Amino acid sequence: MKQFMDKDFLLETETAKKLFDACKDMPIIDYHCHLSPQEIYEDTPYDNVGQLWLKGDHYKWRLMRACGVEEKYITGDASDYEKFEKFASIMPLCIGNPVYHWAHLELQRYFDCTLTLNAKNAKAIWDQCQAKMASGAHSVRAFIEQSNVEAVCTTDDPIDSLQWHAKIAADPTFNVKVLPSFRPDKVYGLDREDYVDYVAKLSEAAGVMISSAKTLINALLKRVDYFYDKGCVITDHASQGFPYSACTDEQAEDIFARRMKGEAMSADDLAKFFTFVMTALAKKYNAKGMIMQLHIGALRNNNKAMFERLGPDTGYDSVCDNLLAVNLGAFLGSLGDEVPKTILYTLDASDFFVLATMAGNFTKAGDRSHIQLGTSWWFLDHIDGMLQQMHTLANVGVLGNFIGMLTDSRSFLSYPRHEYFRRIVCNLIGGWVESGMYPNEPEALEQIVRGISHDNIKAYMGI
Amino acid sequence: MKQFMDKDFLLETETAKKLFDACKDMPIIDYHCHLSPQEIYEDTPYDNVGQLWLKGDHYKWRLMRACGVEEKYITGDASDYEKFEKFASIMPLCIGNPVYHWAHLELQRYFDCTLTLNAKNAKAIWDQCQAKMASGAHSVRAFIEQSNVEAVCTTDDPIDSLQWHAKIAADPTFNVKVLPSFRPDKVYGLDREDYVDYVAKLSEAAGVMISSAKTLINALLKRVDYFYDKGCVITDHASQGFPYSACTDEQAEDIFARRMKGEAMSADDLAKFFTFVMTALAKKYNAKGMIMQLHIGALRNNNKAMFERLGPDTGYDSVCDNLLAVNLGAFLGSLGDEVPKTILYTLDASDFFVLATMAGNFTKAGDRSHIQLGTSWWFLDHIDGMLQQMHTLANVGVLGNFIGMLTDSRSFLSYPRHEYFRRIVCNLIGGWVESGMYPNEPEALEQIVRGISHDNIKAYMGI
Amino acid sequence: MKQFMDKDFLLETETAKKLFDACKDMPIIDYHCHLSPQEIYEDTPYDNVGQLWLKGDHYKWRLMRACGVEEKYITGDASDYEKFEKFASIMPLCIGNPVYHWAHLELQRYFDCTLTLNAKNAKAIWDQCQAKMASGAHSVRAFIEQSNVEAVCTTDDPIDSLQWHAKIAADPTFNVKVLPSFRPDKVYGLDREDYVDYVAKLSEAAGVMISSAKTLINALLKRVDYFYDKGCVITDHASQGFPYSACTDEQAEDIFARRMKGEAMSADDLAKFFTFVMTALAKKYNAKGMIMQLHIGALRNNNKAMFERLGPDTGYDSVCDNLLAVNLGAFLGSLGDEVPKTILYTLDASDFFVLATMAGNFTKAGDRSHIQLGTSWWFLDHIDGMLQQMHTLANVGVLGNFIGMLTDSRSFLSYPRHEYFRRIVCNLIGGWVESGMYPNEPEALEQIVRGISHDNIKAYMGI
Repeated sequence: MKQFMDKDFLLETETAKKLFDACKDMPIIDYHCHLSPQEIYEDTPYDNVGQLWLKGDHYKWRLMRACGVEEKYITGDASDYEKFEKFASIMPLCIGNPVYHWAHLELQRYFDCTLTLNAKNAKAIWDQCQAKMASGAHSVRAFIEQSNVEAVCTTDDPIDSLQWHAKIAADPTFNVKVLPSFRPDKVYGLDREDYVDYVAKLSEAAGVMISSAKTLINALLKRVDYFYDKGCVITDHASQGFPYSACTDEQAEDIFARRMKGEAMSADDLAKFFTFVMTALAKKYNAKGMIMQLHIGALRNNNKAMFERLGPDTGYDSVCDNLLAVNLGAFLGSLGDEVPKTILYTLDASDFFVLATMAGNFTKAGDRSHIQLGTSWWFLDHIDGMLQQMHTLANVGVLGNFIGMLTDSRSFLSYPRHEYFRRIVCNLIGGWVESGMYPNEPEALEQIVRGISHDNIKAYMGI
Repeated sequence: MKQFMDKDFLLETETAKKLFDACKDMPIIDYHCHLSPQEIYEDTPYDNVGQLWLKGDHYKWRLMRACGVEEKYITGDASDYEKFEKFASIMPLCIGNPVYHWAHLELQRYFDCTLTLNAKNAKAIWDQCQAKMASGAHSVRAFIEQSNVEAVCTTDDPIDSLQWHAKIAADPTFNVKVLPSFRPDKVYGLDREDYVDYVAKLSEAAGVMISSAKTLINALLKRVDYFYDKGCVITDHASQGFPYSACTDEQAEDIFARRMKGEAMSADDLAKFFTFVMTALAKKYNAKGMIMQLHIGALRNNNKAMFERLGPDTGYDSVCDNLLAVNLGAFLGSLGDEVPKTILYTLDASDFFVLATMAGNFTKAGDRSHIQLGTSWWFLDHIDGMLQQMHTLANVGVLGNFIGMLTDSRSFLSYPRHEYFRRIVCNLIGGWVESGMYPNEPEALEQIVRGISHDNIKAYMGI
Repeated sequence: MKQFMDKDFLLETETAKKLFDACKDMPIIDYHCHLSPQEIYEDTPYDNVGQLWLKGDHYKWRLMRACGVEEKYITGDASDYEKFEKFASIMPLCIGNPVYHWAHLELQRYFDCTLTLNAKNAKAIWDQCQAKMASGAHSVRAFIEQSNVEAVCTTDDPIDSLQWHAKIAADPTFNVKVLPSFRPDKVYGLDREDYVDYVAKLSEAAGVMISSAKTLINALLKRVDYFYDKGCVITDHASQGFPYSACTDEQAEDIFARRMKGEAMSADDLAKFFTFVMTALAKKYNAKGMIMQLHIGALRNNNKAMFERLGPDTGYDSVCDNLLAVNLGAFLGSLGDEVPKTILYTLDASDFFVLATMAGNFTKAGDRSHIQLGTSWWFLDHIDGMLQQMHTLANVGVLGNFIGMLTDSRSFLSYPRHEYFRRIVCNLIGGWVESGMYPNEPEALEQIVRGISHDNIKAYMGI
């Protein structure tokens, strides 16, 4: 029996161990996350592991709620310790859940604590973590720096001034690149109540009077330039499905005018305007060499009662099943030779295969996998999801070009997930070598695992 | 090489074997099946294994038909032995099919027979089974009692008087709980030819004059109370997809009135009325603490020619692919704080992930997994299906809360499927422990496997 | 560590090795491919491995493009060696891709070359292959004959004269059966620009004046008879989804008349006419005992820019996700007792389960699996796809009836894929035996693996 989460965790063969040695110390490029650049700049300190873990992590909240824990101990007014204790108590039931591994990895890596989480150990773990935090750095920057992070990409609205990114860049005491990502979802969110207000803010941010769909696009593309000049090379777009519907300029103007007058939008209005905006953006991204991320498949705020109490991003989202191939093929095909670098993410494992084969339809001389199958994300961010994503990619594409892991996280302790991912990659590939399915050629193998861990995303982003 | 189906069948590690020891003798709560309460009360005897196996089991019929066996030897007038012999003859081709394992488990557990099913052994197996049946109990109750069954839940129409359940409960010689389940599919089956007749029967059963959608609901909820008073804590609903369409009281009245006049119903009429009835039921179930089972994804009676000859439930159903997330999220979200305990079953493995994440959106303080991902069912009731269901649940939910196995069976010999399931659970979890993915903490592990085998469903049902 | 692709490649147990010994020398029936009967008749010689591999293989083209190789080295005017060198250079990145294994198997089996493909070895491999080709047979027929091929089924349009098939059949120096397959996709392709022209050609080929939907069917069925008389027992139909819509004769006539006048067709027109033609064909196939292949799920020519440059079948197709169960069930159910032998293929792994269970609804006394779940095809033609297809089939059907592998290939070097498949089958089944899940009964086991390798398809085709 292997020891629980020891140094060879997830590494089942000698080749896997060798490959992990070859990539484990490579720096981390966390190219999509939800960290706050302000908190990074201000180097916010945290008081305890309860706060670090439970202040904003809806993965953990969902598990606690599923175990019947009262909301008081989740988002309510219980103390940090009480919340931590409840979380520790339910952990043994969460066998097989990635949070189980993540939490223990974080205890090991940041707090030198190898106790297992349960009701009995809660107090001892808390105390060990407190002692560790008392004896050393426990601020945001400290966690990032000790994790060997080379760059992080935050997620930012087009109207954002990017002031915190500028301040971080100007600070000589912090050498991690913190780059903005352009996330313009609100621009095609005509069903949002605050849409007209948002247009006003965009108008102001861009210095462009927005009176039409055309001027909206003008303003938006100016913001792309602004972000690009601040170091942005990655963009992000989230959608429940992929609502493609070909849209002429005239149609876009009509839809926009009706929305600004306060008219209700049909599903086709929304799809057409989405298509209109995305088309303009995709061509712009391509012209500037920027990357378009598409995050498809989240169905949000399902629990209406809790949404009214707690708002969005509080643990009430789940997976949406969609038919994607026809719309996605039509959209990308419509871009002709102007398809930008694109990363296709899905939240539904059933889509991996469609997206992986679609990616292979749009290539570019000189680019290794011009379109990438995005890594296993959110509800798919676990061993099975990762293996399914990598098997799919290997089967129908080029695994050696894969740009690898990101955390998508709101937590400053989440970097061990990159280690977790690298272990899984090395175990997969090591297993293939040991079973005679790939030759034992160390140079090629190391290029692959180092590429997936770091080098491929660096080249893809051009940073 | 391991011996075929020996005592360590499916148990690949020492930890798996220990865990199985810890749960193998727990009683069975078979909380969803299609057994006849009348046959249980009357303790129907069976003459031979051919009858026991082939009188009503469409799983076996499908395999025989797929091997080209004539209908005469399936539902026709061939003798019990001839049917048994045909079945035995095709078994070797059915490698990997769960029926192969189920049949051999039943031979071992009920007849002490370890011969393998094939043409050559047919006669010897028949004879061994006959000898065994001659020497001991071979009635319905005997099979149930020797299987260590604590409770079974049958499947019953709202108009059922539940007389057999009452008689069983009153019989001091039989100590197994036989509880009714409320299955009101016919109430929203407006496309059934006999709908108007059914309404009349429901009216009579409830003692409520049904003249409107409103009085239909009144009658139906009275039957829920009646069932509840007879020990019913679980309900059941089957649908091809999940046809949600928000429905006002006025719309429901209009649809019902048109149906009672004999008008044809549109797809949206059906969806609206389904939504109307299910909403009333869900809130009622929640008020009474009852469990709502949703069985989604069966496409029935595909072979029209055979349906006309043999009727429903004769082996011509298959899996329906659906888009479920949006409708299911809308329905559950519309219930506000009145979402009942719910078990979400799918017949399509592609839906597990959608359902498992949806389940996590609706929780209740004090309940361990207020919404449950239902176990692998019917066409998914095999090792791969079970592993996929449990992996999915573990990855995005809390495996330790899982309520485990049921047979969904029409056969009195099917209880070894609980043993089969427990072996698979223990092997999965044992494997995780042995490979260092979960700590070797026997107390936590035994709580998990005993919970999944028995304790969790007992607590969830509150019996 | 196992040696890379040695004699026990993919065979992990002793039983697997024994089973492979029992089936490895069985002849190949490649019952669906895209070889050119003219090239077979003319016994076209090839000059080098670059030509053999890269002249028409869009699998390899996609990998090269995904690695950023310029089109010049793919379909452009670079030399055969330059193309081969580029291909060799990107191979190491393609870890886990079936092309990696196929290419190395072909080097081993046809050229006695065990070097691994990469930039460094490119020249040496080229030279070894050239030497081998110089010293022996390297024509189309030579490759087929040394691969122990019993029969191949090409893919042919109803208007084809089948002259090359006739010539091959008349040639006493070549003993491999080369049979035509009837592929009438163009007949229901009302959205094709050349439809009216095509009808004229069909009219001429059949010797039937086509002036209506009815006469179209008459002509088409005459061509079925013609093909049948030339040895055709298998037909083929490709569709993106399965667009069933019940269609009366009157509706068919109206649609056909409108199309012949040049009117645009709606989606429902297309679905209705597809249904109309397929219904007539299915009944005809059933009457003659012919096999209907349905290849569902390819989304073609997604990259419009490249389609205009290179045309179809050049590597820009991908997987289409569809909802299939309702339409497929309705179509097959509508055929009553006239459902022909059918092979259901899907390009989307998510559909395997729906198709496998649907297949079990339509059986015929005397036929082993009257409807077959087609083997893993195109983007699913790899180890994971094969295992998923076989697991699905075993779980809900009869694996022992499976008709096994085909190449679907345009290459004369692709026969080792049958060996690859047989190894995977034997490893799967051997593993079950060694772990006690199936008895170690050599006779039954050999019948299964020999059946899947060769005997089942031979009996199913009746050749």
